Amino acid sequence: MATIRVPDEVPSPAQDSETLNKAFRGWGTDEKAIIRVLGKRNESQRKRIRESYREIYGKDLIDDLSSELSGDFKKAVILWTKDPAERDARFAYKVLNEKKKTTEKLKIVVEIACTSSPNHLIAVRKAYCSLYDSSLEEHIASSVPFPLAKLLVTLATSFRYDKEKVDKEVATIEAGMLHEAITKKQLDHDHVLYIIGTRSIYQLRATFAAYKQSYGNTLDKDVDGCPGDADLRSLLQMVILCIEFPEKHFAKVVHDSIEGFGTDEDSLTRAIVMRAEIDLMKVRGEYFNMYNSSMDNAIIGDVSGDYKDFLMTLLGSKI
Amino acid sequence: MATIRVPDEVPSPAQDSETLNKAFRGWGTDEKAIIRVLGKRNESQRKRIRESYREIYGKDLIDDLSSELSGDFKKAVILWTKDPAERDARFAYKVLNEKKKTTEKLKIVVEIACTSSPNHLIAVRKAYCSLYDSSLEEHIASSVPFPLAKLLVTLATSFRYDKEKVDKEVATIEAGMLHEAITKKQLDHDHVLYIIGTRSIYQLRATFAAYKQSYGNTLDKDVDGCPGDADLRSLLQMVILCIEFPEKHFAKVVHDSIEGFGTDEDSLTRAIVMRAEIDLMKVRGEYFNMYNSSMDNAIIGDVSGDYKDFLMTLLGSKI
Repeated sequence: MATIRVPDEVPSPAQDSETLNKAFRGWGTDEKAIIRVLGKRNESQRKRIRESYREIYGKDLIDDLSSELSGDFKKAVILWTKDPAERDARFAYKVLNEKKKTTEKLKIVVEIACTSSPNHLIAVRKAYCSLYDSSLEEHIASSVPFPLAKLLVTLATSFRYDKEKVDKEVATIEAGMLHEAITKKQLDHDHVLYIIGTRSIYQLRATFAAYKQSYGNTLDKDVDGCPGDADLRSLLQMVILCIEFPEKHFAKVVHDSIEGFGTDEDSLTRAIVMRAEIDLMKVRGEYFNMYNSSMDNAIIGDVSGDYKDFLMTLLGSKI
Repeated sequence: MATIRVPDEVPSPAQDSETLNKAFRGWGTDEKAIIRVLGKRNESQRKRIRESYREIYGKDLIDDLSSELSGDFKKAVILWTKDPAERDARFAYKVLNEKKKTTEKLKIVVEIACTSSPNHLIAVRKAYCSLYDSSLEEHIASSVPFPLAKLLVTLATSFRYDKEKVDKEVATIEAGMLHEAITKKQLDHDHVLYIIGTRSIYQLRATFAAYKQSYGNTLDKDVDGCPGDADLRSLLQMVILCIEFPEKHFAKVVHDSIEGFGTDEDSLTRAIVMRAEIDLMKVRGEYFNMYNSSMDNAIIGDVSGDYKDFLMTLLGSKI
């Protein structure tokens, strides 16, 4: 369930382009108009606006947004306006291109690989090859240390079956295989890798349920208690969370980004922009369940100005 | 370089559908008309004929071909007329669904994974998910023994960068990593798997050349001499051949299928149908280089009737 609110009557892409271009012209920029237009258009509408803007003004809308806006507001509007597959390819590249790839950063690759639809993930890989001189998996395999690279390549190259069909017998057997790997302290065992990396989301949820039923603890808890490579453990726990409860994962990202001193605007923007058209309504519900407070109020209390107004628009408020 | 000959003036899909339908009607079937139409149309033209046939006659062209034709001719015409991604998904499924998956059979999965364009391989995986209750990689991981499964999953899930850009320094380094794995008798080493499975075809060809330059032997030869799992060795050699010289691989498939007593029509058909629009002209040249005889004559000497005429049409003869 998305949070963005597309009006019942949407102006044509040409009209929207004109409103945007007008907002850029003259002294100062009309940020409110930009929020009103782009914050209330879905993916395909934004795509048509980009195309129409280029046709009418012979310029790239993203370039104009980039020169007219600033700060976190600018970053958020641009990420929202970009083609989502290109956006996610750039997120992944930024992480993989860093000299020091911390596990925290690599989690963004897990997030993209495990919370995207199979078709979106393929689109991200195509965008990656178009933007950079490398495939996504090639960049992972050649720049991330093993065994983390193995896990990430398997996740990033998956094209999971996406229907809700589940084989309970397979779920029980594979829960047993996961348990055996944990008992033997082999989190990087091929069985772990290929069960987690190739089975459908629905099948894996059944496997996780079978695991709890057979062995008492959740898989996440047993992975947490398994000795060995702390980074692999941490990534695997994130994989489990993203597959089982993507909404909880994103609620956590939002919460962590505004918790404590200062705000991690990049993470906050990423979570809101990535999920506003997918399941941000559920993320909001999970946030309330997990932290017993309103996600919207927490964001409002932490950010300000046009950036706040834009995020609130994506969250469906009637600003 | 393709071998099929599309006429300068191609009838409309509706006209072609009518010719085909007429060939099915009445007593007997006009096989020559079927060969003349379908054997001289490219992929997108055949697609439009399938669509047009359904619109006009409310029936599936493949179903009608299936009930009107017989034997190897029928199999070849149907494989040629089907959507190529669906065709290859069915080839892979047939292998993976067999109880006894011999290495010889698994080579068909290697062939599809290593000689397809990146976009075609993705299309095959999409078709696989649509046709069967499983993804291609899931089926491999859950039904093929390790370490063969690891190699096949990595190959089948690749989306290789497809531009000719090569990093010679990387080629030298990775040739060294391959050599080290062979020296240590570890053909299933992660480095082997991820170099072979994620690098671009052009980069790998440079790596193979660097290998020969640095270590004297070809990589293929050293893999051949490496002790250990004979099946893995055999699959890896096939991977190297398919990546370095896909034309030689297909020339070998054609040669093996007609060599000795009897003919392996399924393999012969598969090779011709898969490559007629891609590089069958080069395959013909390689066949001559490798066996010092004409591929066309060898095929003509080994098969007969409409099947022969159809293969010859795909090979560009003016029958």
